[in-house]
Amino acid sequence: MASFGFLGLGIMGKAMAINLVKAGFDVTVWNRNPEKCAELIALGAKHGDSPKEVAATCDITFAMVSDPAAALAICQGEDGVAAGIGHQRGYVDMSTVDAATSQEIGNAVTQAGGRFLEAPVSGTKKPAEDGTLVILAAGDQSLYQQAVPAFEVMGKMSPYLGEVGQGANMKLVVNMMMGGMLSIFSEGMSLGMKSGLEGEKILEVLSAGAMANPMFAIKGAMMLAEDYTTSFPLKHMQKDLRLAVELGDKLAHPMPTAAATNEAFKLARKEGYADEDIAALYKVMK
Amino acid sequence: MASFGFLGLGIMGKAMAINLVKAGFDVTVWNRNPEKCAELIALGAKHGDSPKEVAATCDITFAMVSDPAAALAICQGEDGVAAGIGHQRGYVDMSTVDAATSQEIGNAVTQAGGRFLEAPVSGTKKPAEDGTLVILAAGDQSLYQQAVPAFEVMGKMSPYLGEVGQGANMKLVVNMMMGGMLSIFSEGMSLGMKSGLEGEKILEVLSAGAMANPMFAIKGAMMLAEDYTTSFPLKHMQKDLRLAVELGDKLAHPMPTAAATNEAFKLARKEGYADEDIAALYKVMK
Amino acid sequence: MASFGFLGLGIMGKAMAINLVKAGFDVTVWNRNPEKCAELIALGAKHGDSPKEVAATCDITFAMVSDPAAALAICQGEDGVAAGIGHQRGYVDMSTVDAATSQEIGNAVTQAGGRFLEAPVSGTKKPAEDGTLVILAAGDQSLYQQAVPAFEVMGKMSPYLGEVGQGANMKLVVNMMMGGMLSIFSEGMSLGMKSGLEGEKILEVLSAGAMANPMFAIKGAMMLAEDYTTSFPLKHMQKDLRLAVELGDKLAHPMPTAAATNEAFKLARKEGYADEDIAALYKVMK
Amino acid sequence: MASFGFLGLGIMGKAMAINLVKAGFDVTVWNRNPEKCAELIALGAKHGDSPKEVAATCDITFAMVSDPAAALAICQGEDGVAAGIGHQRGYVDMSTVDAATSQEIGNAVTQAGGRFLEAPVSGTKKPAEDGTLVILAAGDQSLYQQAVPAFEVMGKMSPYLGEVGQGANMKLVVNMMMGGMLSIFSEGMSLGMKSGLEGEKILEVLSAGAMANPMFAIKGAMMLAEDYTTSFPLKHMQKDLRLAVELGDKLAHPMPTAAATNEAFKLARKEGYADEDIAALYKVMK
Repeated sequence: MASFGFLGLGIMGKAMAINLVKAGFDVTVWNRNPEKCAELIALGAKHGDSPKEVAATCDITFAMVSDPAAALAICQGEDGVAAGIGHQRGYVDMSTVDAATSQEIGNAVTQAGGRFLEAPVSGTKKPAEDGTLVILAAGDQSLYQQAVPAFEVMGKMSPYLGEVGQGANMKLVVNMMMGGMLSIFSEGMSLGMKSGLEGEKILEVLSAGAMANPMFAIKGAMMLAEDYTTSFPLKHMQKDLRLAVELGDKLAHPMPTAAATNEAFKLARKEGYADEDIAALYKVMK
Repeated sequence: MASFGFLGLGIMGKAMAINLVKAGFDVTVWNRNPEKCAELIALGAKHGDSPKEVAATCDITFAMVSDPAAALAICQGEDGVAAGIGHQRGYVDMSTVDAATSQEIGNAVTQAGGRFLEAPVSGTKKPAEDGTLVILAAGDQSLYQQAVPAFEVMGKMSPYLGEVGQGANMKLVVNMMMGGMLSIFSEGMSLGMKSGLEGEKILEVLSAGAMANPMFAIKGAMMLAEDYTTSFPLKHMQKDLRLAVELGDKLAHPMPTAAATNEAFKLARKEGYADEDIAALYKVMK
Repeated sequence: MASFGFLGLGIMGKAMAINLVKAGFDVTVWNRNPEKCAELIALGAKHGDSPKEVAATCDITFAMVSDPAAALAICQGEDGVAAGIGHQRGYVDMSTVDAATSQEIGNAVTQAGGRFLEAPVSGTKKPAEDGTLVILAAGDQSLYQQAVPAFEVMGKMSPYLGEVGQGANMKLVVNMMMGGMLSIFSEGMSLGMKSGLEGEKILEVLSAGAMANPMFAIKGAMMLAEDYTTSFPLKHMQKDLRLAVELGDKLAHPMPTAAATNEAFKLARKEGYADEDIAALYKVMK
Repeated sequence: MASFGFLGLGIMGKAMAINLVKAGFDVTVWNRNPEKCAELIALGAKHGDSPKEVAATCDITFAMVSDPAAALAICQGEDGVAAGIGHQRGYVDMSTVDAATSQEIGNAVTQAGGRFLEAPVSGTKKPAEDGTLVILAAGDQSLYQQAVPAFEVMGKMSPYLGEVGQGANMKLVVNMMMGGMLSIFSEGMSLGMKSGLEGEKILEVLSAGAMANPMFAIKGAMMLAEDYTTSFPLKHMQKDLRLAVELGDKLAHPMPTAAATNEAFKLARKEGYADEDIAALYKVMK
């Protein structure tokens, strides 16, 4: 059985690593702040002293850190993954990074003789704990095959999407759709309520039709309760919309709905809702 | 037990009337072309000679005809519903008509001493047959209470939405959302495929997340199969988008996403896809 | 020389009628409130007792009233233009009305044996006083030829545009362009200033290039001075944008820029700027 | 009197340098392909062997090259401007480059002891020949003062806009407005013509009103003649729109009209008009 490393024990990473340990895998963990490793070690994980050491000793090392800068930092440098990884070992970066960063990390790993897979996830804390993430894997196909047993523990779906960059593209596509859905939903909810309909009735009718989906139910309830507790920060959604529009630019692909949605989210940023949940888009509509 | 009339035995109306008869209700049917009544009569329905006669003899008369002109025609004139309806009797128009027509029909009925309910439905042939329509009722509340047993047979949900006009408003809100969802979905599907992703993989990933909904699955499959067999004609969706944008106009309610969507559907009309299914919007995006 | 009637002596109409009288024409005036006729009579005009009488005695009767309802009122009824106009006489409605109202007035006039021309104008008080309006004439071509001497006194340009309705269409097209120009101008001015440029410098640069136009100079100065004194009410511009988008709808003509502009003006209405000048659009952008 | 260097004798640069020589200035020219210097030398210019030499011998060196890569190339390296420029000498880059490239060139020059000004221009071949460019200067203010005599020969306006980057920002703002104007103009022209108006009549009416501007006249005539000979390539306009939208993104500044315009230009790229004139936008509208 393959041995796994896991770098980054934040909210997401910790939940994912726990699931690997509980599934009986041989797991070595590392975190910038080593105190966060205690819970994992208590569950049976080993501790690694640096990304380099973890990458050098485990068959496959997974990483889940907060942003592109952190993703680069754990890969580069004398204590980084690339310094430790050797022939036949694999590195799977599950952090959400832009395509250029993913490519840079991939190049560093492959030039050091390793194999690389990007595998950003769709889903937040709860799916991470429940092992029901959607894992968007792209890169080295042999590494993908080897990582599937781990993916099956961490997620409910982990399609292989092609070369490095396609995981990031899929995430952009999916998030762009979510942004557009939220925008038309917010416009429609407020249109209905201004015309005299009750918000609850609109949600009820939606829940019975072909458009019924968990997001409308969850975000709609937040809007009616005026509760914008952050699950997915509005500014991150706007960033993804911007990146999707830019991807469309590269491909000469017009996307008028996405562009209008992007500007609506910008308006929400302008109004000061950048750090609230994406549901706060409703506040600029109502 | 209340006796029911049913006017209009087209694709939708026939299926709805059959469900009423099969549920054991006392049903009198009428259709412009009387031959279509035969199947209902064979199932146990009575036959009425005119809308006037049906309205005069049944406690509640339902109507399901194809457009506002037909809806007006069966209500007005010497053989019309208004000529027959008397004190305490009720008329429930389930056809999809604009707010002004609905108001005009409602006025004719109430001035003749009757009670009126508009009850447009969301759903097409299959839900009509299965008795799983979503019925959007608005108008006389006592009539609504009396009609609920029939609604429960024809639909899975029949919320009471307030005064006449609110049923039409709800339908606009819901259809506008559907149009916007379809537009962002089409843009995203084509963005993904142009960037190298497989369409099936995108649908698969969507089906696993918070946005999962039957419409994406159905319309997505049609897009990938390039099958635009009409279920909901594209031009009707564009008309609803136009009406929703105009309703927003009356309410000083900006709706940039709906407006962009409306123009996208207009482009599809310009390209000649007016009579194809709404999924044909994809053809102007891809 | 033809004799002229003039109905409606508001801000615009008075200035236009004065120009006709000063040019030496035989002019008979009428106004709902007859006191407003005094100034014209002092200049040499005759007074008519009703629209009917004016239409019956003058070769060509011009009208300039405030809205479609007033335009219909002076044409219809026992004292209206249609009741007086006879064979060979002409009626030129210069009010701004929608196409349907224009058609209705035209039908009433022609059924009474008269000839009809719609001739809405582009330009406000100052051009009316200076005789520099742009007159958008459409309808009976022989009447147009006969009216040209009067048009040349009231305006600097009066192209013949075709059948009744084309004057209204031209006005929509021109106003829609003005709305779109104002919207991109407002977005650009605020983008520049937020990025550190001085507003005056932006206006200066624009004044020197291929885009230089009087509207940018006038509205730009108003924006920088935060002076939104109403010259062209914002709500009227939004109405024209709505009508232009609807005209596009009839023609299956997508207009994404006009649609986005329409929503921007709606946002300005929502924010309470409906009665301010169109330049107040800037307030929702900055 | 200051001595001037001029690097880059393409269509624009040659015309600008000729104007400097004809105005009596002491001018030293350099071009990658030295044959292009002959015409200037015949008019009295000196020849420099490299950017380094020109920058080392002239008080102020101007550059006008085709793109950011060329602008960087003549500044960097052992024969570059930065290698020659010394204390008190000035470098004015009039090429159109992005803000980051401009900053990089500026840093190279100032670190070598020189002073830097970015001065992109608005205007094409004809204004360059006529000395009527609009010069958008930003950077070292003392250098600006010293360069004004040259700017006055090359352009009709050369406002000082602040620190390095503001010239580029002004150009984005102005071009974005041009793109938006062209988009609403194209939509309106086609709306009018589809509704039965003659295109020439629309241009005539526009030329008489507050929106009258050279661009509408020039581009309108091209559209009616279906002549899309490239003066300003459509793809460059779309790039500027993209950059403007991205600048708005950084500033949390929503620009729905610019965003819709950007997508319209993308549609024109998709349809294959990238290398035609910006007037070809009309082809996707009509």
